[in-house]
Amino acid sequence: MKFRRSERLIDMTTYLIEHPRQVVPLTFFADRYGSAKSSISEDLAIIKQTFEERGLGTLQTIAGATGGVKYSVKISEQEARPFVEELCQLIASPDRLLPGGYLYMTDILGDPSIVQRAGKIIASAYADSSIDVVMTVATKGIPLAYAVASQLNVPVVMVRRDNKVTEGSTVSINYVSGSTKRIQTMVLSKRSLSEGSKVLIVDDFMKAGGTIKGMISMLEEFRAHVSGIAVLVESEEIEERLVDDYISLVQLSNVNEKEKTINVKTGNFFNQNKEGLQ
Amino acid sequence: MKFRRSERLIDMTTYLIEHPRQVVPLTFFADRYGSAKSSISEDLAIIKQTFEERGLGTLQTIAGATGGVKYSVKISEQEARPFVEELCQLIASPDRLLPGGYLYMTDILGDPSIVQRAGKIIASAYADSSIDVVMTVATKGIPLAYAVASQLNVPVVMVRRDNKVTEGSTVSINYVSGSTKRIQTMVLSKRSLSEGSKVLIVDDFMKAGGTIKGMISMLEEFRAHVSGIAVLVESEEIEERLVDDYISLVQLSNVNEKEKTINVKTGNFFNQNKEGLQ
Repeated sequence: MKFRRSERLIDMTTYLIEHPRQVVPLTFFADRYGSAKSSISEDLAIIKQTFEERGLGTLQTIAGATGGVKYSVKISEQEARPFVEELCQLIASPDRLLPGGYLYMTDILGDPSIVQRAGKIIASAYADSSIDVVMTVATKGIPLAYAVASQLNVPVVMVRRDNKVTEGSTVSINYVSGSTKRIQTMVLSKRSLSEGSKVLIVDDFMKAGGTIKGMISMLEEFRAHVSGIAVLVESEEIEERLVDDYISLVQLSNVNEKEKTINVKTGNFFNQNKEGLQ
Repeated sequence: MKFRRSERLIDMTTYLIEHPRQVVPLTFFADRYGSAKSSISEDLAIIKQTFEERGLGTLQTIAGATGGVKYSVKISEQEARPFVEELCQLIASPDRLLPGGYLYMTDILGDPSIVQRAGKIIASAYADSSIDVVMTVATKGIPLAYAVASQLNVPVVMVRRDNKVTEGSTVSINYVSGSTKRIQTMVLSKRSLSEGSKVLIVDDFMKAGGTIKGMISMLEEFRAHVSGIAVLVESEEIEERLVDDYISLVQLSNVNEKEKTINVKTGNFFNQNKEGLQ
């Protein structure tokens, strides 16, 4: 069966998007379509150009025997901003205020299209970093962690609050919650993380950073390294932040339960890009 | 700026795949590329044909003022089988046996590419059903529930085992675990589910079905309806199954801790297709 260029372009685009950060040998596509490698190279040049012009991602060509082509998501600050600003507006609704100054975000975190877009933006920020695994803590950070991990083509490791028989042997640590100052426990399956792993920590919300600091302590138990920390929303009014090197997409401040007001602005992801700190 | 057909095909393919089950008006694409609607129609015909020939999904054209084109994932039994058979082999490893005859599946559930593929297969099975929301219970079913929901373009509702302040008011029910016969509690935020919603229940593992039966009771509290039940893995050796109308991708039997053997085969998803029950 012979494939026309248009069919190859559609199929290759789908394949690349569904296999981010995987090196696909040119021979794979050549065999798939019964086409010459030179035609495949031309197809890839068109896809690369379109992806880059439309801000869909990048295609990287890797030379040599183990070479091929690799797609990575790449959302620029400029492309991310309208989405994050819309997210800020969504979060800023006074209906979200709960007793104690907490914020209802369950619907936002339950919307796969928001979570996946946020995941792509975070993955873009770490596209050039070396990351072996994404780590999060149950429950609410899980969907975002998966969205990031699927773009980075790495597994997710889930820290739990409780010990489950289905996890096998576990390592357990105690940590102090940053805002409530309570002692809490987190548990991670021994099998789930290899020594020396480079880890991106992802969570939905950061207040003082106690939970994230707990995850960092957990990584020390596994002799693993923190390659980055990313949160969807951070609360700005913290006397003493326990974690300092992180990115956030959204920042909250002036959460006033009585007046039913919240101040929501874009997070430090945008400042960092501006200053070229990434 | 003028777009060539090849660029349009690449960009439209990406857009459609990233917006499953959304009706995209032809004018959206016509404006996006500054092209005539007739050219867009031709492009879509090529994409539709390629998607269907390559088993990537379907494109449906909806006529009328609110019409447009809608992409849905559609993985046939034939395309799903090699993936599920590979998954069976992965699960069948004796290393996975834990004390008590439990199975370690954390690594499998932590692999986004496996979870997304399984999610697409389950979403395909419900592509023609009317589903408003996907429901799961924390923790391990969450990634699969998101993978299904993102393909069906619906939100995820997460039942929890504990009550969290960030959920606002909640409804709480007690249920009996099917295999351990213990009384357990599950909690769902009142805001998270509207009355009359049509719900697809998704979970990673089903033994006797007590947890899923609990979710069904929870849905009754919300006057919501069960549109379907799907699990990744079911354990076959159950004297009395509490739930009967469900699909599974993988079936376990003869879990023998002493002999370190497990029997793993493809789930009833495949039988159902064969008998045309879906």
